[in-house]
Amino acid sequence: MSWQAIGIFDSGVGGLTVLREIFRALPQEDTIYFGDTARVPYGTKSPETVARYAHEITSFLVRRDIKLLVVACNTASAVALNGLKRQFPIPVVGVIEPGARRAVEVSRSGRIGVIGTAATIKSSAYTRAIKRLNPGAEVLTRSCPLFVPLAEEGWTDNEVARLTARNYLLELKEAGVDTLVLGCTHYPLLKPVIAETMGSDVTLVDSAEETARTVAAILAKKDLLRPAAEKGNHHYFVSDIPAGFIRVGNRFLGGRLGDVYQVNLDNDGEEC
Amino acid sequence: MSWQAIGIFDSGVGGLTVLREIFRALPQEDTIYFGDTARVPYGTKSPETVARYAHEITSFLVRRDIKLLVVACNTASAVALNGLKRQFPIPVVGVIEPGARRAVEVSRSGRIGVIGTAATIKSSAYTRAIKRLNPGAEVLTRSCPLFVPLAEEGWTDNEVARLTARNYLLELKEAGVDTLVLGCTHYPLLKPVIAETMGSDVTLVDSAEETARTVAAILAKKDLLRPAAEKGNHHYFVSDIPAGFIRVGNRFLGGRLGDVYQVNLDNDGEEC
Repeated sequence: MSWQAIGIFDSGVGGLTVLREIFRALPQEDTIYFGDTARVPYGTKSPETVARYAHEITSFLVRRDIKLLVVACNTASAVALNGLKRQFPIPVVGVIEPGARRAVEVSRSGRIGVIGTAATIKSSAYTRAIKRLNPGAEVLTRSCPLFVPLAEEGWTDNEVARLTARNYLLELKEAGVDTLVLGCTHYPLLKPVIAETMGSDVTLVDSAEETARTVAAILAKKDLLRPAAEKGNHHYFVSDIPAGFIRVGNRFLGGRLGDVYQVNLDNDGEEC
Repeated sequence: MSWQAIGIFDSGVGGLTVLREIFRALPQEDTIYFGDTARVPYGTKSPETVARYAHEITSFLVRRDIKLLVVACNTASAVALNGLKRQFPIPVVGVIEPGARRAVEVSRSGRIGVIGTAATIKSSAYTRAIKRLNPGAEVLTRSCPLFVPLAEEGWTDNEVARLTARNYLLELKEAGVDTLVLGCTHYPLLKPVIAETMGSDVTLVDSAEETARTVAAILAKKDLLRPAAEKGNHHYFVSDIPAGFIRVGNRFLGGRLGDVYQVNLDNDGEEC
C-alpha cells in the first residue's frame, strides 16, 4: 500500500478527460495534475522540444513524491515515453498503448484508422503499438491539426467543424476502416461531428477509460493502491496563469476542479 | 552611424512578413531575427506569460548588441511593449502603432475594424492607439483564433477558410467599417479570403510596411543608419529545431532565408 499520489500531465487542459476516468476508477487516490498551458500546444513542435518539456514536468512531479506517472498527452506519449521510463524510477503510463489495445479489441476487420496531431502521426507510435498487438492489422493514419483549435474555440457543432471533419476524414472512411482511434485528448469534444462523418459502422476509440484501467491494474499488481474506503484529494498546477484553465477545465470535469496553482518550470523543473 | 544590427522577434514565423519589408526599406542593415517556435502561439496565452517571454528574447538580442528592437508580433506588441521600453536602453518599435496610424490615414468614415488574436483584441491596444490619433474614430474589434491555425495548415483558399472568415467577419462588414486592420502577422496569408468576405469597399491594412518605415525614420533621426551602399547580413534564431521554420520561412521570404540556429532560452535569456 502507498499513500503517495498519482502524477498526471498534459500540454494543457485535454488530459483532464483522462483524469476524470482515473477519478471514476480509483476514487480513493490522491492526484497531482500538471497542464503546460504556457507552452501548449505540443502537437506542432519537434520531438526534441516535447521530450525536454516532458522531462521538466516529470522532474517537478517526482519531487512531489508521486508513485506513478500518467502521460495524458498523445504527443508526449508518442515521442517521450521511453525516455521518461529510462530516466525515472517509477511506473510511467502513456495513452498510446491503452488506445491501441482497445482498438485491436473492438476492430473486426483489422482495418484501423488513427487520427492525431502532426507530431503524434509523424511518430508512427500508434501504428507500431497496434501492429505489436496484431501484426496483421492494417493501420491508416491522418493528422488533423485544426481539430484542437476548433475544440478550443468551442466550434464543435457548426458547419466549419463538419466541413473540416469531412476534409480530414473522408479518405479514411472511403478506405473502409471499421475503427477510428481519437489519438488526441481534445478530439472527444468533436466526437459527434466525427461520428456523423464516419457513419454508424465505425467504432470510435478514446484512450481515457482504458488508460485509467491500466493505471488501476499496475497499482494493484504492485500493491500500491490506497484502501478503497479513502477519498482522494486533487491538486492542479499550470505554467500559465490559471484563469483559462479553470474556465475550460470545469467544463471537462463537470465543475469539480479544485484550486489551481501557477508554477514556472524554467531551469529543468526547478520552480523559479 | 552605427554598424550594429536591427533585432526583431516574433512568436514564430509570422514576423518574417515584417522582416521582408525591413529588407526592402533598409537593404544596407544587418538583422537578427528570433522566432519563439518552442512556445508559439502567444495569442492564446496570458499577458504575464507573453511579457516574460518577450523579456527573455529581448535580453538575448540585446546581448548580441542590437541598436533597435522590432517587436514583430501583435500580441507581444499589445501586452509587452511598454515594459520593454522601460527595461531596455534602445529604441523599441511595435507593430500596433504603425498599423493604427495607417488605418487612420486610409479610413474616410472613421469606422475602423480590427481583427487579431484573443490576447491582442482583449488588450484593446489597437483601439487605444487609433483613438489617440483620431479621438472621433469608431473602432470595432473581433478576435479570430482559427485564422492562425488555418494559415499554418495552408488552408487559405478553401471552403473552410471562406466559411470561417464569414463567421468571424460578417458582423464587422454589416457594421459598415471602411477599413480593416489585419492585427496579426499571419493574417496577410488569408488576405484574398478576407478581402472577398469584406468586399471591395473595405481597405485592408497590414502593419509590416508602415513598421519598416517607422524603423527607417527612427534610425535616420538618431543617425544610426549604415551607409546606403552596404549590403546587410541576416541571422536567424529559433527556440524549437529549425526544420519547420525553414520550410515555412522560405515561403514567407521567397527562398532567401539564411542559416537558422536553435537556442534554448530558459533562465531569463541565458542560453543553456
